[in-house]
Amino acid sequence: MARIGIIGSAGRMGQALQAAIAAAGHDYAGGVGRDGDPGALAGVSDVLIDFSAPAALEFTCEAAIAAGVPLVVGTTGLEERHHWLIDAAAVSIPVLQTGNTSLGVTLLAHLVREAAQRLGEDWDIEIVETHHRMKVDAPSGTALLLGEAAACGRGERLKDVEQRARDGITGKREAGTIGFASLRGGTVAGDHSVHFLADNERLVLSHMAENRGIFARGAVRAAEWLLTRTPGRYSMPEVLDL
Amino acid sequence: MARIGIIGSAGRMGQALQAAIAAAGHDYAGGVGRDGDPGALAGVSDVLIDFSAPAALEFTCEAAIAAGVPLVVGTTGLEERHHWLIDAAAVSIPVLQTGNTSLGVTLLAHLVREAAQRLGEDWDIEIVETHHRMKVDAPSGTALLLGEAAACGRGERLKDVEQRARDGITGKREAGTIGFASLRGGTVAGDHSVHFLADNERLVLSHMAENRGIFARGAVRAAEWLLTRTPGRYSMPEVLDL
Amino acid sequence: MARIGIIGSAGRMGQALQAAIAAAGHDYAGGVGRDGDPGALAGVSDVLIDFSAPAALEFTCEAAIAAGVPLVVGTTGLEERHHWLIDAAAVSIPVLQTGNTSLGVTLLAHLVREAAQRLGEDWDIEIVETHHRMKVDAPSGTALLLGEAAACGRGERLKDVEQRARDGITGKREAGTIGFASLRGGTVAGDHSVHFLADNERLVLSHMAENRGIFARGAVRAAEWLLTRTPGRYSMPEVLDL
Amino acid sequence: MARIGIIGSAGRMGQALQAAIAAAGHDYAGGVGRDGDPGALAGVSDVLIDFSAPAALEFTCEAAIAAGVPLVVGTTGLEERHHWLIDAAAVSIPVLQTGNTSLGVTLLAHLVREAAQRLGEDWDIEIVETHHRMKVDAPSGTALLLGEAAACGRGERLKDVEQRARDGITGKREAGTIGFASLRGGTVAGDHSVHFLADNERLVLSHMAENRGIFARGAVRAAEWLLTRTPGRYSMPEVLDL
Repeated sequence: MARIGIIGSAGRMGQALQAAIAAAGHDYAGGVGRDGDPGALAGVSDVLIDFSAPAALEFTCEAAIAAGVPLVVGTTGLEERHHWLIDAAAVSIPVLQTGNTSLGVTLLAHLVREAAQRLGEDWDIEIVETHHRMKVDAPSGTALLLGEAAACGRGERLKDVEQRARDGITGKREAGTIGFASLRGGTVAGDHSVHFLADNERLVLSHMAENRGIFARGAVRAAEWLLTRTPGRYSMPEVLDL
Repeated sequence: MARIGIIGSAGRMGQALQAAIAAAGHDYAGGVGRDGDPGALAGVSDVLIDFSAPAALEFTCEAAIAAGVPLVVGTTGLEERHHWLIDAAAVSIPVLQTGNTSLGVTLLAHLVREAAQRLGEDWDIEIVETHHRMKVDAPSGTALLLGEAAACGRGERLKDVEQRARDGITGKREAGTIGFASLRGGTVAGDHSVHFLADNERLVLSHMAENRGIFARGAVRAAEWLLTRTPGRYSMPEVLDL
Repeated sequence: MARIGIIGSAGRMGQALQAAIAAAGHDYAGGVGRDGDPGALAGVSDVLIDFSAPAALEFTCEAAIAAGVPLVVGTTGLEERHHWLIDAAAVSIPVLQTGNTSLGVTLLAHLVREAAQRLGEDWDIEIVETHHRMKVDAPSGTALLLGEAAACGRGERLKDVEQRARDGITGKREAGTIGFASLRGGTVAGDHSVHFLADNERLVLSHMAENRGIFARGAVRAAEWLLTRTPGRYSMPEVLDL
Repeated sequence: MARIGIIGSAGRMGQALQAAIAAAGHDYAGGVGRDGDPGALAGVSDVLIDFSAPAALEFTCEAAIAAGVPLVVGTTGLEERHHWLIDAAAVSIPVLQTGNTSLGVTLLAHLVREAAQRLGEDWDIEIVETHHRMKVDAPSGTALLLGEAAACGRGERLKDVEQRARDGITGKREAGTIGFASLRGGTVAGDHSVHFLADNERLVLSHMAENRGIFARGAVRAAEWLLTRTPGRYSMPEVLDL
């Protein structure tokens, strides 16, 4: 049992994190909003989980270093300078940064890379995702993450082989490309499928999220794992020992 | 048992038709290629199935009228003047023209129209299709046919509400639109899914074709049905009594 | 805007109903638990929704009749005498009783019956459902409801054609039967798929529930619809004008 | 380019193999039926593929050894003594024996084992398969193979944790079990899905076969690979370097 503090405890993700902390049998050490002072919270926490905003990261890192507690960073929209902050913090404390804390998606990306590596280019790769009607961008960040995994398995960079939305007279499919398609509607939390299509057979690797609770659950598991680590920078695949 | 003749008996579809005729216990009356003379064939057939080319349609209609035999037209790419030919023939003989002879797709289109009619606009509609890597256009003609059925159920015209491929910053989904997405790869004969997505629930109506044999099977069933009709122009939904 | 009262307002379903009432722009007139007195509540409501227990139904009907307000009964586990109570109440007030208030499932059942009616017995029917790991019975009640719809479309009774779980040397599939399969795991709120399988093609009609909110939403829509009716007994398909 | 001979060249699988040999740019060295003499064929082949019957295996092994050519054994229904024959042949020549030559299924089994190993027992495992209406047993051999892979990933034996078809009052799902469900209908060549279901998320790994051509294609690829090997006994995962 650990005392877990939350940076970014307001919003929906903050509430989901509190529920996940309780469900896993840990103590909620407290939380601060985007403008709060993380220093006091770090002092009474065994580990911190940050789902706030990039602008708050500097103070969060300082507080975690000062208190000597591990830090899980799930905040998205990070730029290069934020990664420098994380690298610097990782000298003193264990830090795990990731754009997706779901264990299922993390494993899926691993399996996709492996499948892409084993199967030749006569297996066409297509990625389709479905999200709720309020989502403003396509493809989803997770779809792109899966595309990177597939490209990586083939020794390519995604930007060299990606084939975005098809419409009109497209001509026949170009070998070696990775296609994307996006559906939008309802309240879908996030479905992703990676299709490998060959002559007369198909392999499909899929993930479905019922709600955002899974991201909270994954963050808590990452926090538990981080408690056992020495200072350094870590990523989600390591949590699953991939 | 009927004697069935084929216009366009060469190619893959011609072979699939011959197999379907035999499987249904009918006699294959013979076939002519695109440049053949349909007159003699019409004379020894009880019904004709045409899967050739638009240019051959005039001679096919003349031959069917002269022999007084019903005609199933599955040829695609017809223009307005071809439809006039069909209308003229339908004065003398029963003629069924369709862009898709599959019974499953015909029924699917019917169910999609009905679902779209019953469900309000708070149910977003998305259509996704998968075809083999050699297909040169997107969305598929059948996906558009299903989109028409959905739009029709809502009292709209598809061209006013269709939302083709999404990519980049799209903004949130516009209510009332019908979205399309296309996957390409392998040797997929044709999968189509129509998704109705509401708050916290989804209804998905799908069709999967294992191979082109189903189009032949549907054409033969249409031919059987046409044998019982008086002169006039018919369509696939009538074969299923929809 | 209507004032909607809830019988059975404690539990999860009661909370989901309150959220659905607010989301639809109505007023929550109040609620009573299983042992509460529905009389006062009926007096300040325009319509009542009951998701309590069969034992409470008698008092609920009496209160609704006395106040002259319509009643939606979503309580499950009803026996013959409860149906008599409902029939008696329907002489004085509009009453809608159903085992599943989801609009999506109601429409799905309708589409399944129609598909089964149109397609011959050379289309095999299989129903597969997935529910969370705590569910104690199989197949689900909704799967059986869909099976009834399919059998009804064929002019059969389900009990005469149902084929429960397969295991071992089963022999080839018997024509005309309707098969069932059940998956259990995780926290799945309820997925149902009805497969129609023919030679070389498949039609699949599916419904997915993300959470129990859809049952609340459907109950509120039923209540709205019931406000416009004269006394009598109604069912969910009528709400969708099926 | 290699000269490939077929033991068991009659039947459907023999024809599929000849097509696959041609498609891969190899020479068909000829074939013998179940009662034919494989000696002469082995003499003019670079590698043999056997899809005949267990009873023919002894002569096939003898002929392959005498000619010093590699042998792919895809025949099913082997007993212990047949495996001894294979082991003995593997002293002199490269031999690959497998119950499923599909590359997709082989990779799927590998991914399933890996996923089962990484994910804890809070991820329930369910396997569902669909086959044509003529199949007489359930679950399919491939479903059981996938179940073995999942059990192996968890350090269990399948027979200790398998949960066959569910029906009636089953009680809640028992943790650690692996469930099976079988659908039958139409002409489905073989669909398999392995579901991993956790709290609020699902991972699904699926394979779909459009026809038996994939088994032929996999056998030819195995033959190509075997040509580069020294004497010994090999299996499909090695062909994919798993």
